[in-house]
Amino acid sequence: MNNTKYINYLFEYIKKMTFGNPGVIRETYGKGENLTHKFLIKELRKFTKNIVIDYGGNFIASSEGKSSNKTIIIGSHLDSQKHGGNFDGLAGVIMGVCLLKKFKETNFVPKYNVAVMGIRGEESCWFPYSYIGSKIALGSFDKKLLTSLIRSDTGKSLKFHINQAGFNSKAVALKKTKIESKKIIAFIEPHIEQGPVLEKNKISLGIVTGIRGSFRFRKAKCIGKYLHSGATPLSYRQDAVLATSMLVFEMNEFWKKELKNKKDLTVTFGEFFTDKEEHSFAKSSGLVNFCLDVRSNSKVTLTKTKKILLKKIKEIENITKTKFNLGQKTSSEPAIMNKKLIKKFELSAKETKIKSLIMASGAGHDASTFANENIPSIMLFIRNQHGSHNPKESMSTAHFIEVLKVLEHSIKNF
Amino acid sequence: MNNTKYINYLFEYIKKMTFGNPGVIRETYGKGENLTHKFLIKELRKFTKNIVIDYGGNFIASSEGKSSNKTIIIGSHLDSQKHGGNFDGLAGVIMGVCLLKKFKETNFVPKYNVAVMGIRGEESCWFPYSYIGSKIALGSFDKKLLTSLIRSDTGKSLKFHINQAGFNSKAVALKKTKIESKKIIAFIEPHIEQGPVLEKNKISLGIVTGIRGSFRFRKAKCIGKYLHSGATPLSYRQDAVLATSMLVFEMNEFWKKELKNKKDLTVTFGEFFTDKEEHSFAKSSGLVNFCLDVRSNSKVTLTKTKKILLKKIKEIENITKTKFNLGQKTSSEPAIMNKKLIKKFELSAKETKIKSLIMASGAGHDASTFANENIPSIMLFIRNQHGSHNPKESMSTAHFIEVLKVLEHSIKNF
Repeated sequence: MNNTKYINYLFEYIKKMTFGNPGVIRETYGKGENLTHKFLIKELRKFTKNIVIDYGGNFIASSEGKSSNKTIIIGSHLDSQKHGGNFDGLAGVIMGVCLLKKFKETNFVPKYNVAVMGIRGEESCWFPYSYIGSKIALGSFDKKLLTSLIRSDTGKSLKFHINQAGFNSKAVALKKTKIESKKIIAFIEPHIEQGPVLEKNKISLGIVTGIRGSFRFRKAKCIGKYLHSGATPLSYRQDAVLATSMLVFEMNEFWKKELKNKKDLTVTFGEFFTDKEEHSFAKSSGLVNFCLDVRSNSKVTLTKTKKILLKKIKEIENITKTKFNLGQKTSSEPAIMNKKLIKKFELSAKETKIKSLIMASGAGHDASTFANENIPSIMLFIRNQHGSHNPKESMSTAHFIEVLKVLEHSIKNF
Repeated sequence: MNNTKYINYLFEYIKKMTFGNPGVIRETYGKGENLTHKFLIKELRKFTKNIVIDYGGNFIASSEGKSSNKTIIIGSHLDSQKHGGNFDGLAGVIMGVCLLKKFKETNFVPKYNVAVMGIRGEESCWFPYSYIGSKIALGSFDKKLLTSLIRSDTGKSLKFHINQAGFNSKAVALKKTKIESKKIIAFIEPHIEQGPVLEKNKISLGIVTGIRGSFRFRKAKCIGKYLHSGATPLSYRQDAVLATSMLVFEMNEFWKKELKNKKDLTVTFGEFFTDKEEHSFAKSSGLVNFCLDVRSNSKVTLTKTKKILLKKIKEIENITKTKFNLGQKTSSEPAIMNKKLIKKFELSAKETKIKSLIMASGAGHDASTFANENIPSIMLFIRNQHGSHNPKESMSTAHFIEVLKVLEHSIKNF
């Protein structure tokens, strides 16, 4: 099987295996994720006998190098969004698989150990928390979360699901790991770009400088009062739809202002819904559920946005006689990619005559867990159409192969 | 049983019979409405033998007067909102029942026939259309609607439900009626006030000058694109939540401006919801479903609001790269109450020493069907707490009895 055929085979096989109309479903520690791990481990056994599965179910398949004391990891996650696309996460792992296959077929022995890592639970739609798998792998996962995190579709705890999938929540609680952070000289995460930048610029490879941090309110509410739509004058209203709409509007105005000041920021209200049981066209609404996701590569901007949010909420509460309840906040730190690795990949791209673009990552990724543990980390973005976190994401195999070429060249010259 | 006990008994009995947590459920041509009609007809048989049920299931129970050629109708509807309060509609019919009871018990023969009417299907939450029962009663109901109107909870047609409840959709299609419009010298609709005006002013009786007309888009959509919340810059977004929020905000600004210009208007977005299956905090939203209800006592203001709405939508579509689809429009005409009847009831209130307030009705009512058929019509609002169209509406029996007194005095002096 040539390279293109093999790559397509892996993507197609996994897509079919985990498809749930309209998109793929690979739940963290659930059926789709488990099947994908099993299949790729079986595939990797063809290329190496050295496969380790850690206490949280991440796998690390290594091709031994001449200096077995140092390891380069190529990895990404294998879970997906609820109706996500097939390439988010998976592409990075498959790229590692392709590299190990090449090493095996050409009897190439790298200078350092080269490992492919399949990571669990990166998406926070299953459990309301990001980077579960990579944090477990590096021993930085807070054990309290094992019981407090509840999976959105099953209502069961992370602990339950880790054990049910055959792994060891007790060892996870004790922060036991199977990889030594000190040995890792580079964590490389190839990943489809989830925005439109590479596609608009017709460039296959993005070399990532940093990953945005975030704060999120996943279950926020605005509480007003259900009142007759025709019989209640404006001054008597307590309209939750109006109040929440004002907040969306005001935060968008703030975002525009920050962009003018050259600040890095995104502000997204992805969910906004009145109550199906009680809402009606004939009543102003007494309840809106919504969520808010704010991201920036600057801690200062994140803090400022939070402050503005609270200020705007107070103003709107006064005007509309409603109450906001933001609920629990989750957040992640911005992460900076390793400058030496950025230079190395820039050079490799030049030497292999593949165009690259230096860019920031708007989305969060496992690479930020590695970077925040002081492991030199880098991300390689692969050109991709139709965004991500939706069934339509589509990456062409030709672009994938170009990035694979740069990766191979870079590793051989490490 | 004294007056207060009897009134409470009727309200409580019907509430228990039609309760569905958290509010009453009296579906148009459904179980709750049917039970309420049956119970009140049985009750009315104690006071008169002259009860007619028309082809659409409305009942008319008459106390014969000295001049049997002219009839005064006291009526309202007996359906409710999905989780509505117990008094909306029901109060008007019970007031008529109390009057006929009084006539019977005191052997009083009125000058004209006095009839109590229980009307079907006034609320448009079951079928997306208002005043079904009163339009059928007066022969002004468009037969096409028999098959095109679908009940929101069953998915079945109005025709099906009329026949299933034991009435005659064929006769309805032929506009057959059992009351003669020409004979009706007054249609009087006592009804709880659904806004807060009487309550805030501590007045039991509102004498209504006119009923607002409306236009409605019950199933409007804004279509954008699901895009990664962290990786998609503002300029690439097509965010349906932002676009719809902008529309809510802009229409509220317009409303405030019209109020400053002393125009009568309400603008309500009662439903606003992203798609449960596809929305996520990690994506900007590709779809918002919403509804819009606009009311005014002025045709000119309704037309102007519609024009502004379409203009704002175009502007917002351009800014946000989304598309609005308003769907089908329904509308009703503003209706003017009879000036002579207004004077008559003002005088009766004075003579019985009960305070009254002259006011407009924000909500639509069956009285507008009668008024628009040139039948002299009037509404009497009864003071009520906590608004309407919600389980908390609450009318005190003392206020009800005050309005009943004015009504009795007025009819006796007709």
